[in-house]
This record gives sequence, structure tokens and C-alpha cells, in this order.
Amino acid sequence: MTRRVEFHETDMAGIVHFSNFFRYMEAAEVAFLRSRGLKVSWHEGAKRYGFPRVSATCDYFKPARFDDLLAITVTLEQVGSKSVTYVHEFRRGDELLARGRITAVYVHVDEHQQMKAVEIPQEIRDKLLTESLASPEAS
Amino acid sequence: MTRRVEFHETDMAGIVHFSNFFRYMEAAEVAFLRSRGLKVSWHEGAKRYGFPRVSATCDYFKPARFDDLLAITVTLEQVGSKSVTYVHEFRRGDELLARGRITAVYVHVDEHQQMKAVEIPQEIRDKLLTESLASPEAS
Amino acid sequence: MTRRVEFHETDMAGIVHFSNFFRYMEAAEVAFLRSRGLKVSWHEGAKRYGFPRVSATCDYFKPARFDDLLAITVTLEQVGSKSVTYVHEFRRGDELLARGRITAVYVHVDEHQQMKAVEIPQEIRDKLLTESLASPEAS
Amino acid sequence: MTRRVEFHETDMAGIVHFSNFFRYMEAAEVAFLRSRGLKVSWHEGAKRYGFPRVSATCDYFKPARFDDLLAITVTLEQVGSKSVTYVHEFRRGDELLARGRITAVYVHVDEHQQMKAVEIPQEIRDKLLTESLASPEAS
Repeated sequence: MTRRVEFHETDMAGIVHFSNFFRYMEAAEVAFLRSRGLKVSWHEGAKRYGFPRVSATCDYFKPARFDDLLAITVTLEQVGSKSVTYVHEFRRGDELLARGRITAVYVHVDEHQQMKAVEIPQEIRDKLLTESLASPEAS
Repeated sequence: MTRRVEFHETDMAGIVHFSNFFRYMEAAEVAFLRSRGLKVSWHEGAKRYGFPRVSATCDYFKPARFDDLLAITVTLEQVGSKSVTYVHEFRRGDELLARGRITAVYVHVDEHQQMKAVEIPQEIRDKLLTESLASPEAS
Repeated sequence: MTRRVEFHETDMAGIVHFSNFFRYMEAAEVAFLRSRGLKVSWHEGAKRYGFPRVSATCDYFKPARFDDLLAITVTLEQVGSKSVTYVHEFRRGDELLARGRITAVYVHVDEHQQMKAVEIPQEIRDKLLTESLASPEAS
Repeated sequence: MTRRVEFHETDMAGIVHFSNFFRYMEAAEVAFLRSRGLKVSWHEGAKRYGFPRVSATCDYFKPARFDDLLAITVTLEQVGSKSVTYVHEFRRGDELLARGRITAVYVHVDEHQQMKAVEIPQEIRDKLLTESLASPEAS
């Protein structure tokens, strides 16, 4: 997945604001899920399911700048009983700019907007794992 | 209402990104509604009501910068049968930096996430108008 | 230009936050300028030139939602002596979701970070106009 | 430091988007620095100094929602020769919602926009440490 740095993503230091790497990671995660027929959040009537994050981290090695074309790779590091962990790497050409990790938990949101972590159904687990094996270059 | 410009709100030109003035306006509008016992969006079970925007505009006279303390005034310009229009002015000390206008429509969101504009109930209309008359300096 | 709505661009009303349409417009404007060999902001040593906005407006007809694929068209409405005005239209399939307008002024930023509007040089004016005539379908 | 969750900071899952906690941390860090007479970034003519982040992490325990009043505490965890590490805790009333950590490096930005990590001058180190000792409850 590639994306071009947008002007509003920079700050007065002239570089991409560090918080935006987390938005890039999310977009890459969404693309990863979409390629496996999954989503970050969805409704079934008033019920909602989703993958909110319980942990997010990023190490920054070199700044990204306006108009840079970033290549972002997503690796599925671990699928637990209720959680998924991704590692993201950001490159500009050959340079590794940053590396992040996000852990998301599978939740059910009830009609009172309360979230509860639940086991990842086998069907979703299969989609996460099988298809990633089917296209190993994606990891 | 005052707010201090945050670092992430600046861009590489060293000034507040123009899109953030719309977020400032929203926060000022929320504070305006809160002071009248109202909200921008709320749930009643699976039903939702809210004031999504149908029009937003801003004219920029001077740039705002990191750490500036902005004074934002909200004036209720018009209350229509289904809509509300606010005018926002942004000042740094005596300098007028920007002036914006937002029109929001009162909607009902059904269980299929479809929005429909509906008449503003009298109770809400009263809160919008009466209390603004009660504190004329707020407008 | 097309772009897919990202998750972080939605709000709790389940739709794209209205402020993000201004970021979409900017990205479309940058792509428009890039296609003509121009930029929104650039450095020449300590000197900076750019196109900060003096006016931005958007009318919203229908909400955009997560994962929507938006088609954004940019039309150069007017090139004044110091300013440029663009009109942006947002469509999802055949539906017109929103229409915006942005006026940007050509400025010189000195070493004290002070901005001053200056005449758009003929070279830049030519790039803005000639090539847009050369590819009329872009407008 | 307290701040109220703004509407645009929520996402379609009805909670504060996880990336915004990093913006909250930055604002808390800026307030921390300001209280010690320091800044995140500043100019001296064409020279720039600043504290860009080299690492940022956040663990999320409970979601924050629109209009929540968040209490954010900043603790100076470590001052290295070129870096500073802060720990941030987010509470709503007695509930701990999230805990983050940011490491920033002191850099000099030259006229070609290149960043270089440099030793934190004694004067800045003193401000970071002495005044935090003077008000131990701040850490």
C-alpha cells in the first residue's frame, strides 16, 4: 500500500505530525482487512462489531515530509483468541522511516454503546489467517 | 470562549491549517448548545437526533499561529423551521483573524442510519432562543 | 481524482466529519497544482512562497460514509492578479454529495514568518491556465 | 490538565479515535514545557530547535466519549543526554482510560530542513528538572 503525504498532515516543524502515522496504520489495516473480506467496524441492525485498538506504538527513525510517497507494509504478527496484532513499516524508497504496532480486540457493542471483548469467530479467524497464507507476499 | 492553538493544528507553512477553523467553530457551537442544555448529537435508544451541517464557510484575514490564544464568539444568526445558522468570529487580542458561518439542520437518524431533516421541536427552539435572549452578551 | 473515506475521518454520527471535506479539497488542489508542475508551498532557501487560503466554503447535500469511494473534480474558476479560486465537487457514483469553493492567495513569506500577498508571476499563471486549457477534461 | 472531548475527535464507533490520544499527549507535553518556560519547537532566525518524537505508545483500557472531561497527568520519566521521556495518564473521574509514553529528542534543524539530534543544553535541562522538583506533585 502506498500513500502520498498530504499538506494538512504536516506541522510547523515541516514534517508529518507523529500522530498521523497512527492514521496511516489504520488505513493500511483497513485495506488489509478489506482484502480479506473484513472490516474495522460494522453494523448488524442495532448491533455493532468491531476491532477497536487496545495498544498502539510507533518508533520514528526519519521524518516524512509533504508529498513523500510512503510505502506501508502490514504484517499480521499474532492472532490471539480475542485480539489481533499488526506490525506496520513505513518506507520512502529504501529508507525505513518508522515502524509501528497495533493490537486490536474483537468487540461486540450492545444497544447501550457498551463494548465487550468477545472471541474472534472461527469464520473471521480463517479469513485473517488463510488468505494471508494464500498471499504470503502481503506479510 | 477561548482556546489555545495546539501544535498539531499547524502545518508546514507555520500557521493553523485552514480546516481547523471549522473544528474550532464546531467546538464553539457545542459550547453554545451546552450552555443552553442542548447537544450536537444524541441517542434515544437506537434513535439518533442531531445537527449535521449543510453549509460551512470561513474567510481568513490573518493567520493564527501555534500557542496563540484565540477568542471565539458565536452569534445565533437565524433559527429557521429546520435549520440554525451561527456566525463565528476569531480574534487574537484586538485582531480579527477569521469569520465563519455554519448552517446546521435538525435531523432524525433512523435505525438504518438514514438521516431526515425534521422541524426543530418547540422545546429545542425555545432553548436556542430564549436563553440567548436571557444572556444577550453571548450573541 | 478519487479517494476512499478513511475510518478516522468519520465521527460519532457515522458520517464523514464536515471539516474533512476541506482536507479533501486541499488534496485535490495539490494534485491539480502538481499536474501543472506547481505546489501549495515551497522553499527557496529561507524564502517561502505559497498559496494560503483566504476563503473556503462547502455545501453539503448528502453525507459521505466510511469506505465510500469519492470522486472529486476540481475546476479553476478564476485566476486573479494575486488569487486563485477553485470549485470542488464530490460525488459517490452519480450522487452529488457536496460542493466547495476555495480561494487562495499567492504570498511571499519572509524570514520573520510574515506573509505578504504578491502578484502571481506570469510563469505560474501560465502553468495554471495553459495546461488546464490543454487538458479541458480536468476542469 | 483537563480537556473536554470534542465532537470531531470521535469516530463512527462512537468513541474517541485512538490517534487523538497522541494529540492530547502532545498538548499536555506542551503545557508541561510551557510551565517550565520551554517550547516544543521554536525559531531563532532561520535556525530551528525542537523536540520531535522518536517513540510514542499508548495502551487503551476504556473508551473515551464525546463531551467527557479528561484529566491528563504528565510525568517526566527520564531526561537523557539528547532525549526526554514522558508518561501520560488519562482519567475520567476515577477511571484510568489510557496510559501513554512519548520519547522526544532534542534537535537542531538547519537551513536545509535537516534535523540533527544534539545534546540538551544545560539551561534547558535545568528547566526540565529543577522546576519539576520545585513542584513534585506535577510528576
